[in-house]
Amino acid sequence: MPSPKWLQRMTWEEFKLNLERCDVIIIPVGSTEQHGGHLPLGTDTFVANTLAEGASEQTGAIIAPPVWYGWSPHHMVLPGTVTIRPEILIGLLFDIIEALAHHGAEKFVVINGHRIVNISWMQIACEKAQRVLGIRAAIFDPSYMSKEIVPELEFGPVGHGDEIESSHMLYSYPELYRAEKVLDYIPDYKPLLSADPAFQGDTLCYIPSTIKNMEKSVKVAKGISGSPSRSCKRKGERYHKHLVQRLSEVINNMQEKEE
Amino acid sequence: MPSPKWLQRMTWEEFKLNLERCDVIIIPVGSTEQHGGHLPLGTDTFVANTLAEGASEQTGAIIAPPVWYGWSPHHMVLPGTVTIRPEILIGLLFDIIEALAHHGAEKFVVINGHRIVNISWMQIACEKAQRVLGIRAAIFDPSYMSKEIVPELEFGPVGHGDEIESSHMLYSYPELYRAEKVLDYIPDYKPLLSADPAFQGDTLCYIPSTIKNMEKSVKVAKGISGSPSRSCKRKGERYHKHLVQRLSEVINNMQEKEE
Amino acid sequence: MPSPKWLQRMTWEEFKLNLERCDVIIIPVGSTEQHGGHLPLGTDTFVANTLAEGASEQTGAIIAPPVWYGWSPHHMVLPGTVTIRPEILIGLLFDIIEALAHHGAEKFVVINGHRIVNISWMQIACEKAQRVLGIRAAIFDPSYMSKEIVPELEFGPVGHGDEIESSHMLYSYPELYRAEKVLDYIPDYKPLLSADPAFQGDTLCYIPSTIKNMEKSVKVAKGISGSPSRSCKRKGERYHKHLVQRLSEVINNMQEKEE
Amino acid sequence: MPSPKWLQRMTWEEFKLNLERCDVIIIPVGSTEQHGGHLPLGTDTFVANTLAEGASEQTGAIIAPPVWYGWSPHHMVLPGTVTIRPEILIGLLFDIIEALAHHGAEKFVVINGHRIVNISWMQIACEKAQRVLGIRAAIFDPSYMSKEIVPELEFGPVGHGDEIESSHMLYSYPELYRAEKVLDYIPDYKPLLSADPAFQGDTLCYIPSTIKNMEKSVKVAKGISGSPSRSCKRKGERYHKHLVQRLSEVINNMQEKEE
Amino acid sequence: MPSPKWLQRMTWEEFKLNLERCDVIIIPVGSTEQHGGHLPLGTDTFVANTLAEGASEQTGAIIAPPVWYGWSPHHMVLPGTVTIRPEILIGLLFDIIEALAHHGAEKFVVINGHRIVNISWMQIACEKAQRVLGIRAAIFDPSYMSKEIVPELEFGPVGHGDEIESSHMLYSYPELYRAEKVLDYIPDYKPLLSADPAFQGDTLCYIPSTIKNMEKSVKVAKGISGSPSRSCKRKGERYHKHLVQRLSEVINNMQEKEE
Amino acid sequence: MPSPKWLQRMTWEEFKLNLERCDVIIIPVGSTEQHGGHLPLGTDTFVANTLAEGASEQTGAIIAPPVWYGWSPHHMVLPGTVTIRPEILIGLLFDIIEALAHHGAEKFVVINGHRIVNISWMQIACEKAQRVLGIRAAIFDPSYMSKEIVPELEFGPVGHGDEIESSHMLYSYPELYRAEKVLDYIPDYKPLLSADPAFQGDTLCYIPSTIKNMEKSVKVAKGISGSPSRSCKRKGERYHKHLVQRLSEVINNMQEKEE
Repeated sequence: MPSPKWLQRMTWEEFKLNLERCDVIIIPVGSTEQHGGHLPLGTDTFVANTLAEGASEQTGAIIAPPVWYGWSPHHMVLPGTVTIRPEILIGLLFDIIEALAHHGAEKFVVINGHRIVNISWMQIACEKAQRVLGIRAAIFDPSYMSKEIVPELEFGPVGHGDEIESSHMLYSYPELYRAEKVLDYIPDYKPLLSADPAFQGDTLCYIPSTIKNMEKSVKVAKGISGSPSRSCKRKGERYHKHLVQRLSEVINNMQEKEE
Repeated sequence: MPSPKWLQRMTWEEFKLNLERCDVIIIPVGSTEQHGGHLPLGTDTFVANTLAEGASEQTGAIIAPPVWYGWSPHHMVLPGTVTIRPEILIGLLFDIIEALAHHGAEKFVVINGHRIVNISWMQIACEKAQRVLGIRAAIFDPSYMSKEIVPELEFGPVGHGDEIESSHMLYSYPELYRAEKVLDYIPDYKPLLSADPAFQGDTLCYIPSTIKNMEKSVKVAKGISGSPSRSCKRKGERYHKHLVQRLSEVINNMQEKEE
Repeated sequence: MPSPKWLQRMTWEEFKLNLERCDVIIIPVGSTEQHGGHLPLGTDTFVANTLAEGASEQTGAIIAPPVWYGWSPHHMVLPGTVTIRPEILIGLLFDIIEALAHHGAEKFVVINGHRIVNISWMQIACEKAQRVLGIRAAIFDPSYMSKEIVPELEFGPVGHGDEIESSHMLYSYPELYRAEKVLDYIPDYKPLLSADPAFQGDTLCYIPSTIKNMEKSVKVAKGISGSPSRSCKRKGERYHKHLVQRLSEVINNMQEKEE
Repeated sequence: MPSPKWLQRMTWEEFKLNLERCDVIIIPVGSTEQHGGHLPLGTDTFVANTLAEGASEQTGAIIAPPVWYGWSPHHMVLPGTVTIRPEILIGLLFDIIEALAHHGAEKFVVINGHRIVNISWMQIACEKAQRVLGIRAAIFDPSYMSKEIVPELEFGPVGHGDEIESSHMLYSYPELYRAEKVLDYIPDYKPLLSADPAFQGDTLCYIPSTIKNMEKSVKVAKGISGSPSRSCKRKGERYHKHLVQRLSEVINNMQEKEE
Repeated sequence: MPSPKWLQRMTWEEFKLNLERCDVIIIPVGSTEQHGGHLPLGTDTFVANTLAEGASEQTGAIIAPPVWYGWSPHHMVLPGTVTIRPEILIGLLFDIIEALAHHGAEKFVVINGHRIVNISWMQIACEKAQRVLGIRAAIFDPSYMSKEIVPELEFGPVGHGDEIESSHMLYSYPELYRAEKVLDYIPDYKPLLSADPAFQGDTLCYIPSTIKNMEKSVKVAKGISGSPSRSCKRKGERYHKHLVQRLSEVINNMQEKEE
Repeated sequence: MPSPKWLQRMTWEEFKLNLERCDVIIIPVGSTEQHGGHLPLGTDTFVANTLAEGASEQTGAIIAPPVWYGWSPHHMVLPGTVTIRPEILIGLLFDIIEALAHHGAEKFVVINGHRIVNISWMQIACEKAQRVLGIRAAIFDPSYMSKEIVPELEFGPVGHGDEIESSHMLYSYPELYRAEKVLDYIPDYKPLLSADPAFQGDTLCYIPSTIKNMEKSVKVAKGISGSPSRSCKRKGERYHKHLVQRLSEVINNMQEKEE
């Protein structure tokens, strides 16, 4: 299998050649944000990177250098978290796409390793990019793209540092997994509130929590919500492969569609 | 039943008195956007207003003057649509909340009559308001708050000017409903794409369409997608009452919770 | 007489038809701001709306949905007032005009129901709209458009919640007028200071007051300056009709001038 | 008579000393803008400077270095004109006041040598400065401060490069006056339009012209409107002294008022 | 020798004529900033102005009105200093160039009288102007343009209000020089730190000091660093003439190069 | 030797612990920009990363996740280059520092792998961070920190993809070096122009080139200026170790200085 095609490792001539072979560019975006006692601060970006690499190997799509920082105001409750203002992130993503569009790229998949919180500003950046630059963009988010497999794997709902994310990291980056530090925390059920895109009941729309609302998770489980003690490398592998396969489908669909 | 408590109709003394009685303020936000041949350009704001009025009658919550304009870049394909840049809308909503917070209000429900498109900028505005001003905010959106009743009413998926929205308007504003102009259009199924929060398959995240992608809906059904021909006043009533009841619950929950 | 042509009540096809009949669009802008014990917080927007309706009936001009919020930093001294930053209002008004210009509208009358305070940011927005979009704009303000009739009606100078505004509201919205709450307050004469466009002496230019400078008006007259006790429905009617007639003239002049 | 107290010519110790003697700072703001065939591009700033100097001599007020650039979008029709975006000018004036307020200054008179066009952005900057910094600001504009003397001097209405401005320049900067280049142009009367603060009829609010609307003035009189051929040094002197005396009054009033 | 060609003293016709003769425009930018006990607050702008005048006399280049304010956050430690945010200065300089480019000017030399601190924002403004407007710009800074003559004149390193700047002011503006107030202060050597472009050792990049780091200079020498007691009119003259000659070279090179 | 302390690989508890051991945080910033036929697009960020790693090993300083994108408007001439607007980069760097300062970090070294072009916006971001957040920042740039060793190594002047950069990459990332693609190009000497901080003659200040001015370098040497054919791994090693040692010195100096 060919190795993943990271843009930053290519010369400009190699970039040009690779773009001719596959005209979709993947932009991995994550966050730098606390992930409890057992997962590293870079988890969300590592997730975006490993998905990008998997799909790049299968499709030949170029991967732009990762954006390591995202929007994480609520996780500022614990050290090491870095949050960037949405207006800055919108400008950054737009400028990346604009520059690559200037060189002839017309199709982009933005991978969001950070789940629901990054989506709002990405929608604004991508809508502007599509309208102003005439390119096509898609936002690929693991929590929206695993609605079919998560119940099959008998994972619980989307939380933070939960068994889904933890299984994925355990599979893709075992050296960054502190198994001995795992803690579980199942928040009380709150009616009309859920950040899980697969939740079927009536809900309000997601707003990133206040720091105050993070306190219980911090106190009980060092910032986690979910049951990472249930994480499992084999399930992580199936989850990862499902997402890589979906991402490759998205890229292939985009390539085929000539407009 | 008491009449809805619109802020703009009160003197400042009446505002003060009403705020003491119920300390939640509703902010109705919609859009000015084409809704096909049978629904008016103001549909989304009318929807937000009628829900606000229903819940204000039940709870006594004050309703701030409506924001008639939203983010509608894709509907610029048809005349009469007005789209405002997300950064302006973020500033506008934040300033409204900030001013009312200055006068002592601490709890806000923003009603989004415009469904998925307005949510991204509202999340950014509300997160900032919660963090900077120390207030509590909720975003109430009909498409997220009717996931339980829509299947029961045997409505199809969320579209635009669809049978859900049309039934609602038929019930709440029959004088604005042009029954003779109704057209249906069921877009082809696109794998991995759905703007319906209740959809259970794997999906990419929503990005407002390009004008190009609106063309078929324009050509076939004057801008509609869905089956408004199936709209029904009685279902509209049940849908409306479900939402008003949910909105009242949200307001009551907020009032009770003293933090 | 035909009814006023509110854009939000039309379908997009009706909008198109009406724009062909009269190519001037009225945009009513007000404020949400304390108006003493006897007038509602929405007074300035109600004023803009009723003038818009009057002229729309006479000319057929379309009225865009009202902007209920304006620039009111000084009136934040009393509850219920909402002030929006001028840069946000400039962006909002520009975007409304830009979207409608995109659909072919070329002539706009912005009605300012809020008198002198809104004018500065409207000038900046309208200049940009004229220059960038190639449209024509006019700002219609009651205090500038009644310099001829006010002395005739023996009203005192422009204040806040004064007999001019009060008479107008008494005529146009009697149900919102709290006659029993009327208080008068005549501020001390300050040399070289006047916010009345009709004042003939030398003056400094208007700057919205500080909250500190509002205190006396708050203490003595619940936020009023002027003599609303002298307000009179019949004078309000003459004042209203003068303004509606002027507004219709402005619209007719714009329509005739083909450039 | 003491010489004018320009800040840029003082050391910081002299600034400190002078601020103790008179705690009002004058900020002269003008424009760089065509003024026909007979007046220099810097006319508006020269006007602001000479008024500042006159009042500084009488009151001891410090004069901040002049802002030579203003908002002149319409005069871009002729070469040499420089227009700055209002948002930049607002930021510039606010920052000047903020820095001087940081050093203890609490009272500011902004002189606008550019007449009506600069006022809108100055209002926004000064309101913010008063509210955020707790200082007091006044905007002194020749056309608002000469409503009493202009009829007495039998000048015509405010135009551009008119007999008022020309007489003033002839008196204060005779070496910059090209007498042989004077041209007159009296624009047609336009109902409901006037940029003269002393005009008594009903008017729309001022919006800076489009370049198209400047064309006749350019063609007929090299950018002038008014009757500079009627300019007169002696009248210029009386006009100048009236304004200097008014400016000194404003400064003295500010000094006395201790709040 | 012809007199310096200040734009603000020309009519628009004279501007046009002069631009035909020499198509390079000089924009002098300085600061308003403490310069110790012996130099005026306007020193940096006076320096830019006198260099501009010298080169204008030799080359016929037009000089735009001076920008008296720059970026001086660290000098806010002493009264009279005015600092403007870099984003405002970027906008201001860009707008000046854009307006003059609109009138046909294609070549600009920005003189920075303020040495290293202004350069960062000027680079951003000039890059944008070159890219967006298609003009050519150069930034002329005395400390970069005197690397050859300063050792010859046996001046010490670049400081603030040092013998270089003081000698220059003594020559060009003797009436603004307070000889009796001169104080010296040689800061301790800090390894890997120097703001002198001629320094040959390894260094970190310049960042404007904090106010805290200015304290010693304030305490010992009223804000100065360097040895102004060694200043010398004759050396100032040679320094001035070197810079004027260099500036004229730059202007002549620009004129010749037709692209 | 301990391994480099990348923040993204730590949990939040490890971050906290490491910050207690060494309270300086390194932020590596580079660019994504063409580097000729023989060096990868990510060269500047790789340079920042390898220096950061070297100094982290020696000092224990934490390294924040790299910023892969910088300001590269002129290199947009060749494909693969990504340029971000300076105002976005200023916001991004400020936000990173602000978030880490929130967690108690007080000392930052920003490594600029991109040489002169990134410095301007970094100065603006770091000045603001120092002033607003009370932290200490330093900007470490290879071209300023190798003025002493470069002549010793007999390298030519700073260019682009030159023998300095190439030797460094050859040493640190040999697998990314395409030896067979090396081309040389020595631009003509331009009087009064040099981007090399070690250049001793009089110069104008640097402004990023226009795309037009890049054309010769593109044509002759695929975007290079300098003599990479002279690059040498052993010299690259000495250069690298000099910089790592300097960076460690800077970090140690910062740690010692308690304020």
